[in-house]
Amino acid sequence: MIEKIKSGDRRSIARAITYVESESLESEKLLDELFHLTGKAYRIGITGPPGSGKSTLTNALAKYYRKSDLKVGIIAVDPTSPFTGGALLGDRVRMTDLGLDQGVFIRSMATRGSLGGLSKKANEAADVLDAAGFDIIILETVGVGQSELDIAKTADTTIVVVVPESGDSIQAMKAGLMEIADFYVVNKADRPGSEQSVSAIKTMLQYRSHDESTFMPNVVKTVATENKGINEVAIEIQKHKEHQISHGKFHNKRISRIKEKIKEITEFKLCNLLWSSNNNAFMSEELNSPYQVSEKILEDFKMNLTKRS
Amino acid sequence: MIEKIKSGDRRSIARAITYVESESLESEKLLDELFHLTGKAYRIGITGPPGSGKSTLTNALAKYYRKSDLKVGIIAVDPTSPFTGGALLGDRVRMTDLGLDQGVFIRSMATRGSLGGLSKKANEAADVLDAAGFDIIILETVGVGQSELDIAKTADTTIVVVVPESGDSIQAMKAGLMEIADFYVVNKADRPGSEQSVSAIKTMLQYRSHDESTFMPNVVKTVATENKGINEVAIEIQKHKEHQISHGKFHNKRISRIKEKIKEITEFKLCNLLWSSNNNAFMSEELNSPYQVSEKILEDFKMNLTKRS
Repeated sequence: MIEKIKSGDRRSIARAITYVESESLESEKLLDELFHLTGKAYRIGITGPPGSGKSTLTNALAKYYRKSDLKVGIIAVDPTSPFTGGALLGDRVRMTDLGLDQGVFIRSMATRGSLGGLSKKANEAADVLDAAGFDIIILETVGVGQSELDIAKTADTTIVVVVPESGDSIQAMKAGLMEIADFYVVNKADRPGSEQSVSAIKTMLQYRSHDESTFMPNVVKTVATENKGINEVAIEIQKHKEHQISHGKFHNKRISRIKEKIKEITEFKLCNLLWSSNNNAFMSEELNSPYQVSEKILEDFKMNLTKRS
Repeated sequence: MIEKIKSGDRRSIARAITYVESESLESEKLLDELFHLTGKAYRIGITGPPGSGKSTLTNALAKYYRKSDLKVGIIAVDPTSPFTGGALLGDRVRMTDLGLDQGVFIRSMATRGSLGGLSKKANEAADVLDAAGFDIIILETVGVGQSELDIAKTADTTIVVVVPESGDSIQAMKAGLMEIADFYVVNKADRPGSEQSVSAIKTMLQYRSHDESTFMPNVVKTVATENKGINEVAIEIQKHKEHQISHGKFHNKRISRIKEKIKEITEFKLCNLLWSSNNNAFMSEELNSPYQVSEKILEDFKMNLTKRS
């Protein structure tokens, strides 16, 4: 399977991501073996409030890179709807557009699972695409929540997309989006108020603490549906990449990403170990203070570990 | 301090919540001692996309309950902005409105900290208010992310607020809001399109799986700025409460909340224990596969535990 993924076999890639999503035992072994093949792809995070046109921008950017014959992987983190039981719109809409291009691989991931697992899974899916030889990986998330932000944050370049509707940039700031942006896109810039949005963001940026080594975020206007401004977005990505490399931040960010991954995996496994032992018994006891129950569970867990060894 | 909190002393309540926010050692001891005083307050979660008017609705609802002389606590989870270093708007705006009323306690909490900590802290702050004798506790969150949803979800009744802008209800559905709502509020219902929003939500609700014991969510129209529809919101909360009680779900939900808390506390402590030992050393090693580094860390952790006991 490793060989097949390495050669870019689409079915093996799809299956590997399914393993990752289901957190199967195979997935860890697989990711472990793929690790030495990763690190070559450039990861772009695209996030912003619902309705800002992230998917359209992602597709337009993918097409842009395809013109230079770069292979593009897209991981779209779509929240689950209980009505559809899966990612809404997502793949199907995109498929009509990019799906027939063998140089593009698109995967929607739903937020069905637990909180902590989401950014882990999205990054692991990106690792699979990285190992499979995709040059550009775009991680697209509905970014108005911590776990969604966490995904975008781990990218090499993170773009925050807003629309020129009244107050949208303020809302994005409230939602904590502003602090993770390497630069901004005001999409749907043919609508009234786009100039005001751009200057509102620029004003806010002045208050951001920065020194000489800080990449000063720019604001790019796009009309993604008409393919306008996509060139400028790609140029800004390149500028940010070069700035990071020349300031030694590119490598550092990747190291932190790996450390973060180690932390995630370790905590995940340790908690699995915790709840797989018989500590659940305490849960059904008469409910005392949760703090005391928790102490009992931990003591019991440590005791069990000691006995086992 | 316990006595002071019990008697409703505002300064002690404020200090207790600060302990909770900083995750100090005092906070756990305090919460442990307060536990037997909790369980009396009714918790209402209010969530929805940015700009839907959650704060205004929260304030209007608080004023409504004040008319019956019920004490109201408000925990507003405001994402952190790097520009202000704290909760934006938040307290200050509210203060002019409700702040002088001794029967209302308002606290903004920022999402500064780590992901997992957020819902833990918000719920613990609610526990403090519960122990202090507040009858109604409103947990207000910008609900377009998993951790924010988690907060709202733990409430006895969860309300999802949308506005009648085109596509807003669809976006709310995409963002996973729909599955957590006990009922819906279409706020700013004096704007065009409110009837369409109501029927769009009602249509979507038909596809939701339900049986006889399911509370069928209603859709309430409000203009919170003009205090319109607030009465109806309160009635719907009461209806949901009674339905939950008569179907035995009220108690079950609270039990799950406590179990969830036990899980959170235990995992939090265990992970603290993990990283407080010298496992960090592996992090700075030459970076091998994170899966192998993680294995080493876990083995080392288990070994250390065994040695210590």
